[in-house]
Amino acid sequence: MIVSVFRKAHFNAAHRLHNPSLSEQENKKLFGLCNNPNFHGHNYALEVKVTGEIDPVTGYVIDTKILKDIIQKEVHDRFDHRNLNIDTEEFKNLNPTAENIAVVIWNLIKPHLNPNLELALRLYETENNFVEFHGK
Amino acid sequence: MIVSVFRKAHFNAAHRLHNPSLSEQENKKLFGLCNNPNFHGHNYALEVKVTGEIDPVTGYVIDTKILKDIIQKEVHDRFDHRNLNIDTEEFKNLNPTAENIAVVIWNLIKPHLNPNLELALRLYETENNFVEFHGK
Amino acid sequence: MIVSVFRKAHFNAAHRLHNPSLSEQENKKLFGLCNNPNFHGHNYALEVKVTGEIDPVTGYVIDTKILKDIIQKEVHDRFDHRNLNIDTEEFKNLNPTAENIAVVIWNLIKPHLNPNLELALRLYETENNFVEFHGK
Amino acid sequence: MIVSVFRKAHFNAAHRLHNPSLSEQENKKLFGLCNNPNFHGHNYALEVKVTGEIDPVTGYVIDTKILKDIIQKEVHDRFDHRNLNIDTEEFKNLNPTAENIAVVIWNLIKPHLNPNLELALRLYETENNFVEFHGK
Amino acid sequence: MIVSVFRKAHFNAAHRLHNPSLSEQENKKLFGLCNNPNFHGHNYALEVKVTGEIDPVTGYVIDTKILKDIIQKEVHDRFDHRNLNIDTEEFKNLNPTAENIAVVIWNLIKPHLNPNLELALRLYETENNFVEFHGK
Amino acid sequence: MIVSVFRKAHFNAAHRLHNPSLSEQENKKLFGLCNNPNFHGHNYALEVKVTGEIDPVTGYVIDTKILKDIIQKEVHDRFDHRNLNIDTEEFKNLNPTAENIAVVIWNLIKPHLNPNLELALRLYETENNFVEFHGK
Repeated sequence: MIVSVFRKAHFNAAHRLHNPSLSEQENKKLFGLCNNPNFHGHNYALEVKVTGEIDPVTGYVIDTKILKDIIQKEVHDRFDHRNLNIDTEEFKNLNPTAENIAVVIWNLIKPHLNPNLELALRLYETENNFVEFHGK
Repeated sequence: MIVSVFRKAHFNAAHRLHNPSLSEQENKKLFGLCNNPNFHGHNYALEVKVTGEIDPVTGYVIDTKILKDIIQKEVHDRFDHRNLNIDTEEFKNLNPTAENIAVVIWNLIKPHLNPNLELALRLYETENNFVEFHGK
Repeated sequence: MIVSVFRKAHFNAAHRLHNPSLSEQENKKLFGLCNNPNFHGHNYALEVKVTGEIDPVTGYVIDTKILKDIIQKEVHDRFDHRNLNIDTEEFKNLNPTAENIAVVIWNLIKPHLNPNLELALRLYETENNFVEFHGK
Repeated sequence: MIVSVFRKAHFNAAHRLHNPSLSEQENKKLFGLCNNPNFHGHNYALEVKVTGEIDPVTGYVIDTKILKDIIQKEVHDRFDHRNLNIDTEEFKNLNPTAENIAVVIWNLIKPHLNPNLELALRLYETENNFVEFHGK
Repeated sequence: MIVSVFRKAHFNAAHRLHNPSLSEQENKKLFGLCNNPNFHGHNYALEVKVTGEIDPVTGYVIDTKILKDIIQKEVHDRFDHRNLNIDTEEFKNLNPTAENIAVVIWNLIKPHLNPNLELALRLYETENNFVEFHGK
Repeated sequence: MIVSVFRKAHFNAAHRLHNPSLSEQENKKLFGLCNNPNFHGHNYALEVKVTGEIDPVTGYVIDTKILKDIIQKEVHDRFDHRNLNIDTEEFKNLNPTAENIAVVIWNLIKPHLNPNLELALRLYETENNFVEFHGK
């Protein structure tokens, strides 16, 4: 019996979309207001999806308290109330688009899960803009 | 033309996570506050997803009024304002985790659908904890 | 400059609507499914509203971290994952309707606030049923 | 690295479910209140999902501003504040069920996307009734 | 102990903003797309707020099942899946703006409440546009 | 007939809570993570409430298109995708707490409204933290 378990979390961060290998003008054209050198910010919402067999002893695929702790440590403590471009190792040389943030978070969470479990995630930048990554 | 139709419903219930084949201590360790012998409760939200071909006469995959009635009879009338552990046959001997509730509901709804239609569902225990089951 | 600050929190609990001074039949008639002797439950959502002058030094009416801690201790730690009727002092002899829960919570939070601050709160039993109490 | 990007949009429209090749009575039986000859209406919410590789230069799968403009022109400007049955070419001879609206919108958006990108969408007729179409 | 009880309900309707005493051009200028002669529509959401003393016997200000039935009969059965301009007495000679709909609904519900209870309501035309009326 | 009309809008911004007249240590103690010198950010949601008499000609208290344009110009164009502390005149010398932002926005919008209309507003910093200001 394969079931997916979801856990939602939140973090608030500043960021700026910018590719240092492009000119100022190209950056402005590509990223518009998101290229503001003084940064803007978002309330990011993260839905982590873990898929696997139900353990007949617990009735759980994964204990959501364990999943919550992984997200707290790997995502919230790292990115919440941070400037993604300045305060984090992950985005010092990587443009913090929603797509790239999703891939980074997937790679931060995956090593903490039982290898039998599949991981996917959805990241909301706003209610109207969000992305999904399934690890492939 | 394959389309998925979703219908959302709600029920409010009490439950307790508990495996009678384990000791009190093991139950407490595994399920924490959810093991409270006097129960706690949730507003469950259920999204039922039915996938199939659009009927060219009606423009429907399934009439959502029919789907609504199935959910009302098989899920709402059975579980709403109930204690899942005490008041229901389904969870007398099955730990009512979100995972197990989803599988039980899938099995309750599936026989009422045309066999050509695929069934999946998402069950929210809270806004931040939810599960999906696709019947496999 | 009078501003209201709101902080939202959640707790999940079981309860039963019941007035022990009435007959079984009267209770059933008055409270219907909510009178189920085995309890049902809800995801309660609480919005606490604190109104007062902005402190010119901090720019705060009240530090929401302080407000969050009061709610955590007085509401969440007391009621979350509890059976309101059995596990709490407050509802041993008081029917845990949304109205009464709101009044009880108001009285639990008020003594922890600076007397210059006004307190009101909204309690959601479900998305469609909720109450407000302003302390009068 | 395959990521899905979602963009949500809204439009408000009147419609009537009706199949002119059926009798009045059959229409009433099939579509009930939705067959009201004077129309009723909805706040439709549309989630457009575009799946593809992350462009290493931009960090985007697709610039959501471009996706927003496609939705604005092809969906919003065409259907918002319209009567779907009377004011649009698309539903003059097609019953505007949520299923059919989803297929129509898919066909309107698809030609504007790079052929490497996959398109799917979810259309909400209400919070409780919605559909998904993946183009197959 | 004065508490407010809220009950939320929904109805889906078509309407057109139009003042017959003005010219076509003035109507178009005033109401823009909302003046479309073929109508558009909305998922209206209604929050009814009833304020009064808690009854010490029931712990209720008003039984929300009674409030639900009043809303069902006076609002939902009258306006749901209707064209407000054509199918209802109330808006044959009254422009169905959100403001006017709120006043009409207030007047429909008020006579069914105990005169000791105060009535107010909030009507959502969309998530971003809504109105409140307190009966004065 | 006095009705309140609400219009909701959104803007995304970076900010830092900081009082330059206090020491580094005092700032850190008072504002914690929100004092991060590299900024963090939020998706702010703003609900503007305008109260007045219904105009019998239009059925409006205020045309929400006009209200939308005022919010767009005075709030969105000024603060969206900005760093509140660096990019705006308003918060160069004012700590951008939710309370202070609400007061600033009230003062930006008020002069554009007919003096007969009352103005209040609610500002969401996150779903769980928000403030209200009524202009007094």
